[in-house]
Order: sequence, then C-alpha cells, then structure tokens
Amino acid sequence: MKTSFIHTYVSVDCVVFGFEDDKLNILLVQRNVDRKGLKDLKLPGSLIYNEEDVDDAAHRVLFELTGIRRMSLKQFRCFASPDRANDPGDVKWLDVAYQPNINRLITVAYLSLCKVDRKLNNISKYKQTEWCPIDDVPQLPFDHNQIVKESLIEIRRWIEHSPSIVFELLPQKFTISQLHKLYEAIYNKSIDIRNFHKKVAAMSYVIALEEKQKDVSHRAARYYKFDKKAYNKLKTSI
Amino acid sequence: MKTSFIHTYVSVDCVVFGFEDDKLNILLVQRNVDRKGLKDLKLPGSLIYNEEDVDDAAHRVLFELTGIRRMSLKQFRCFASPDRANDPGDVKWLDVAYQPNINRLITVAYLSLCKVDRKLNNISKYKQTEWCPIDDVPQLPFDHNQIVKESLIEIRRWIEHSPSIVFELLPQKFTISQLHKLYEAIYNKSIDIRNFHKKVAAMSYVIALEEKQKDVSHRAARYYKFDKKAYNKLKTSI
Repeated sequence: MKTSFIHTYVSVDCVVFGFEDDKLNILLVQRNVDRKGLKDLKLPGSLIYNEEDVDDAAHRVLFELTGIRRMSLKQFRCFASPDRANDPGDVKWLDVAYQPNINRLITVAYLSLCKVDRKLNNISKYKQTEWCPIDDVPQLPFDHNQIVKESLIEIRRWIEHSPSIVFELLPQKFTISQLHKLYEAIYNKSIDIRNFHKKVAAMSYVIALEEKQKDVSHRAARYYKFDKKAYNKLKTSI
Repeated sequence: MKTSFIHTYVSVDCVVFGFEDDKLNILLVQRNVDRKGLKDLKLPGSLIYNEEDVDDAAHRVLFELTGIRRMSLKQFRCFASPDRANDPGDVKWLDVAYQPNINRLITVAYLSLCKVDRKLNNISKYKQTEWCPIDDVPQLPFDHNQIVKESLIEIRRWIEHSPSIVFELLPQKFTISQLHKLYEAIYNKSIDIRNFHKKVAAMSYVIALEEKQKDVSHRAARYYKFDKKAYNKLKTSI
C-alpha cells in the first residue's frame, strides 16, 4: 500500500567529462572505506545541506574537487528509484561517510566539462581522484553506471544546443585533428575528415593561429583557438 | 552554518501544454483551500510516495488528472531553492492538503503535452481544472511561475530534438494554418508563411488528406495528418 510520502535525503552527483588520448574520460573519486585495496570508485557527489539549493551543492562539489569556481554545469536528471541505495555496501558507506539510517536517497545528476591539462586543486574529502576513459568505467556504486550512460546522451544534446561547450574540453590552443577526434569520441563514431574540415571552416568562431605544433614527427599542424566573442556575436544575430 | 543535511519531502509538478484559439495554454488546478472565492490556481502535482520513483509519480498525477495513461512526459529540472515553500499561505495549504511540518520541499518539474479537444477524465483530488493561456497565467504559489517560465524554454528544446512532439498538441486532422500558428505560439514570434510551407513540404511525415474543412467562411483548407511510421522510419535512417 502506498500510504506515506517520502521524507528523504537528497544528493548531487557530477559527471565531469575530460578529453585525453583521443578519448572521453570522466572524473571518478575513490570512496573512503577501504575494501582491502580494491579500487572502489564512484562519481563525485555529496548530500545537500539544509540551506543549500541543488545547483549550489553541485558547484560546491566541483569546487572542492578541482579548485575551479563556477565550472560549466548542467543539471540533467533526478534519479530517484526507490531501490537505488539498497546495496549493503552502499548503505554501509553512507553510514560511515554521512550518517546512519539513510533509508532512501534521491540524487540530482549534473554534467560538467574540464580541460584535463588543468591542474586540479582537490580539497574534497576524496583524497584520490582519477580520470577514467568512458569505455573502461568499472562497476560503480548506487546507480552511477546508469547516470554515466545517460550523461553521454545528454552531452550530445548539450553540444547540439550549445556548440561552444566542446571547446571547454580542449586546450586553449588545439589542432583540427584534436577537435575532430573529440567529436568522434563524443558521438562514438568515425566522422569523415574532409566533411569535418568543411564544417569547421563554417565555424567563424574557430580562429587559425600563426603558431604550429613543434617537435612532432609528422607534418606540424596549425593551432586554432575558440573565439568566444565571435561566437556570442553570432549567437545573438541568429 | 551549514551543519546538517536536508531531509525533505519531494514533489513532482507538471506543466501540461495544450493548444487552443491559436494560443499555448497550460493546465492549472484549483487548490482545495478556499480563499473567499478567490481563484487559487497552481500547477498539478503531488508529493511522491515512499515506494515511488519520481517519473512514476508524474505519470500518476497526469493519469489522475486526465484519465490518460503514459502521456508524453519529460522531466526537465529539479527546483530546490531553500525558500521555495516559505510563503505562509503555501505552508498552510501543505498542512491541510498533506501533513503538518513540511519544513522544506523540493520539486521535480515535468513537461507534458495534451490535445485540448480530448475529453479529460479527472479523478484527482483537484475538482476544478482549467486551461489557461500562457500569457494570462496569474500569480501561482510556490515557484510555479518560475517553473512555467522555464518550461517554455524547455518545450522549444524538446521540439528541436524531437520535432514529432508538436503533433501531440494538434487534433488528429489539422490544417497547415493550425500547425503554423502552433509554431508561432511556441516560439512567440511571427513566422513567414511561405517559408513555413516549404518547411512543411520537407516533412515527409506530414501527409495531405483528401478531406477539406467544411462550413468555413473562408476558402476551405486541406487537412493533414502526422504519419508516425514515416517519422520513425526517417529517424532511424539518419
């Protein structure tokens, strides 16, 4: 019988994407409870505080993890299956990490993007963090694997709606080959390079620099940069 | 001081769009507490039950309100400002409608679409419901006005991503003029009719019928229908 209304804790969980070695990576943290040396990774997250809005909680989690304030962040879904925090290992971890008797826990999932070459200043309670290629994500606690899966669909939507966000995954200076490989990684398919060059040529906000790669064995490729002003101007003129 | 984690009730709220008299309308319900005959409208919603997922709660609310099972539904945002349920009138209503001492309440907002010519079978606790043009939405309780505002941005995104959903707002048979006015209403701007005809001509899933309007003072327009099979075929071929 459905007789009572839930009275529950609420958390935020963040899927932070990075781009490295031609692959999409996500940032995982190691839980504090030691399971005999086994890696016990999860998405970075936190219960939200009494006087906190969910978006603020997500910004707090990311700031503590990276030292970066106001990262691009997109709330994408509330996960609230009644049995998402039923696994005994997860219950035990919640007992220790937060407080006992967390009988149900709903979470609001966020997407974020980070340049992996950026030095992260981690002051969170998670001492160990690591970038993990999206295809090699291990079994995660709670419904975190499902959250990761849905975040991939969501990042594509985000890019279709706001093409500029891909540049948050690239270094300040990047080659067209890097941009191409990023698109291939996000869409998980090969994209014809000649068509891709045409596509980029139409992006008036991708600006060729004088500078080229140095110390590479192949022909040095030209660097490009993203011109945010040109992008915003274009966007408001549509 | 942020010292404790929230332990809160969670609700769902639904913005149900309909299309009537060339305008976007939303479905509002009248709260049970009588304020001396004053209309006291809100978005349809409910606290979620102990064993219920949020999506299921949203489907339950819409089914109770309309008699329609599995309406198209899109979760779009969790609203969790700490002061969203602080207004004394809202607190009083929660006391009576649910239970006392609901000190904080976060809500998960959903979008839905409904044909307004469909007979609704309302078995919800809200005895009175009404379609309200989006431009005439009165002051609503909680943060419902903000939810409505953000739902308008969200419905545009939804359509860009899934063009077929607009047809859920139209009668089974519709004229191009109706479709045109629906797009104008959603985007809140005038759209050149000749360009629009070209756009529709490119939609292979919008099928002209033999039938035309009857009993109209102007030249009878042809009816069209949405061909879901053709749409799905096209979608999978992209």
